[in-house]
Amino acid sequence: MTRRQLTTVTDVARLAGVSPGTVSKALSGQGQLRSATRERVLAAAKELGYRPSQLAKSLQTGRSYMVGVLTTDSIGRFTIPILTGAEDVLEAGQVSMMLCESRGDRVRERHYLQTMLSRRVDGIIVTGRSSDERPSIGDDLPVPVVYALNKSTDPSDISVLHDDRNGAALAIEHLISTGRRRIVLISGPPHHAATTNRHSGTIEALHRAGLHLAADPVFGPWSEEWGREAAAWLVRAGVEFDGAFCMSDQIARGFSDGLRELGLRVPNDVGIVGMDNWDAMVGASRPPLTTIDLQMSRLGYVAASLMLAQIDGEDIEGGSRLVPSILVMRESTRVATA
Amino acid sequence: MTRRQLTTVTDVARLAGVSPGTVSKALSGQGQLRSATRERVLAAAKELGYRPSQLAKSLQTGRSYMVGVLTTDSIGRFTIPILTGAEDVLEAGQVSMMLCESRGDRVRERHYLQTMLSRRVDGIIVTGRSSDERPSIGDDLPVPVVYALNKSTDPSDISVLHDDRNGAALAIEHLISTGRRRIVLISGPPHHAATTNRHSGTIEALHRAGLHLAADPVFGPWSEEWGREAAAWLVRAGVEFDGAFCMSDQIARGFSDGLRELGLRVPNDVGIVGMDNWDAMVGASRPPLTTIDLQMSRLGYVAASLMLAQIDGEDIEGGSRLVPSILVMRESTRVATA
Repeated sequence: MTRRQLTTVTDVARLAGVSPGTVSKALSGQGQLRSATRERVLAAAKELGYRPSQLAKSLQTGRSYMVGVLTTDSIGRFTIPILTGAEDVLEAGQVSMMLCESRGDRVRERHYLQTMLSRRVDGIIVTGRSSDERPSIGDDLPVPVVYALNKSTDPSDISVLHDDRNGAALAIEHLISTGRRRIVLISGPPHHAATTNRHSGTIEALHRAGLHLAADPVFGPWSEEWGREAAAWLVRAGVEFDGAFCMSDQIARGFSDGLRELGLRVPNDVGIVGMDNWDAMVGASRPPLTTIDLQMSRLGYVAASLMLAQIDGEDIEGGSRLVPSILVMRESTRVATA
Repeated sequence: MTRRQLTTVTDVARLAGVSPGTVSKALSGQGQLRSATRERVLAAAKELGYRPSQLAKSLQTGRSYMVGVLTTDSIGRFTIPILTGAEDVLEAGQVSMMLCESRGDRVRERHYLQTMLSRRVDGIIVTGRSSDERPSIGDDLPVPVVYALNKSTDPSDISVLHDDRNGAALAIEHLISTGRRRIVLISGPPHHAATTNRHSGTIEALHRAGLHLAADPVFGPWSEEWGREAAAWLVRAGVEFDGAFCMSDQIARGFSDGLRELGLRVPNDVGIVGMDNWDAMVGASRPPLTTIDLQMSRLGYVAASLMLAQIDGEDIEGGSRLVPSILVMRESTRVATA
């Protein structure tokens, strides 16, 4: 592979017949220079394709124009839209992301934190797969920190979270608005923040409508298989229901398949709402799934905006921010028209 | 949020009662110093929690210890394992990744390329969703470039690719080894490199066993729906087959569902092999899918290794490298044990 040598200030100085210091002055627009000299330097820089080093610029301004992204869990379905949303903001501010994935390993995490600080990142976004609380990475860091999707244990830290409670409430309100009254809840694993908050949101929304769950909530893994099992269990137990809120699209898809194989029709007999708006699930489901979109990309956008505001010197109040969820309607809750 | 001020060389110098130049000498271990002075500086640096700036170090060594990752398409299911594999190598070499996602937009791509070069990345990994050829980002860049998953149009560029041909051959050989002789091919969209190479690999493997496809290959999108349609079409057309290679796990899952709903049994009547080893598909399929793993994480590992070798000054030959695929056996091809 041919490789061009990197052009330096010295090369530009040599071609323009001036000192390196004069080149710096000419390019930065600072200091006094005759305009003929400045033009000669600019022409030389252009001819050689000289790019001022961001490193040198960083040492001058004290900013690296780079934000560290520390993901505590693997990069995946939930972190990707967050990164995309963050990039929309950071890119507009001409800031790059330095990505570090600790895979949940505390030793790696400490190491990455040191690496990011030694590279003088302007700030750190901490993210990961789970919305459970995670230990604060510290309140004595020299740069601002924003937690996205993860909630920091330190209430004075800034955390941006999706709104599970409001998402669950939207699901229930939609089921009710499409005429469902005997609603069941198919939960994820117990003792997760996501499960607990979705459960509360469900109960509260039912309560506001003067309703109760048609059966005690059932808990299981975030899988299609669990959705199918839950369907079989409810039908065998003789529970009568006409609506179901499933805490993930995978559970909802399995639940829908399970009902169909037991001879029940979706949406005619049972309306189903999932959660996540995961394209590989909602589209492949038969019928396509109505679901709650947790707006992860919006979450990343908000987190990065709060980060940039702090870098620019704004004083942002600590605590959690919730990004509202939205309802996405598809056929699994369609109301038959006359 | 409390924010600690960043400790500088000046702070350390003040505490140790020496000049900043002496601090640099003491910390870098370069230049002559009395050991008592050196120890006083080290003690002061430790007390203040001073971290030498990576920026300053970079200016000294001419290396940024950072590799730019330019993804031409969105970050997703295929790029994630590549990033993970690359990280295994880079992290061991204490190199960070700077992530830039161009979303397939050429203007963004040029912009990011400039950004990465101005930040003096030590090298650039170009990646994206499709294995089709993509324009070279140039052969006159001052740093090494490796294409991962994407193949550069310039044959002198270094591209690391998964092996579709060998993957397809593994699928066919496995179907034959489990007693299948009338094999059908359910393809992805035509005119894609992935489809074309998987097709060639299929035909060649059948040919080596003295076999032919049981029906002309059928082409469609990478979706479950297409898999179901293909199953219905083949059965209605009266094609007799006992084995199927589907070019993705989504197609394979749909094909499997389609056959079951038409009364055929998998694997008893038809053995099915998919491709991708996508956990959300292979596990949820009934029965779980035998599939080809394209070893994307290994691909990222190889690409990053070739990158580091070049950064360390090794001369790496241009051209494409193929990472072999592997077969992952599950129930969809199980042979009944008497």
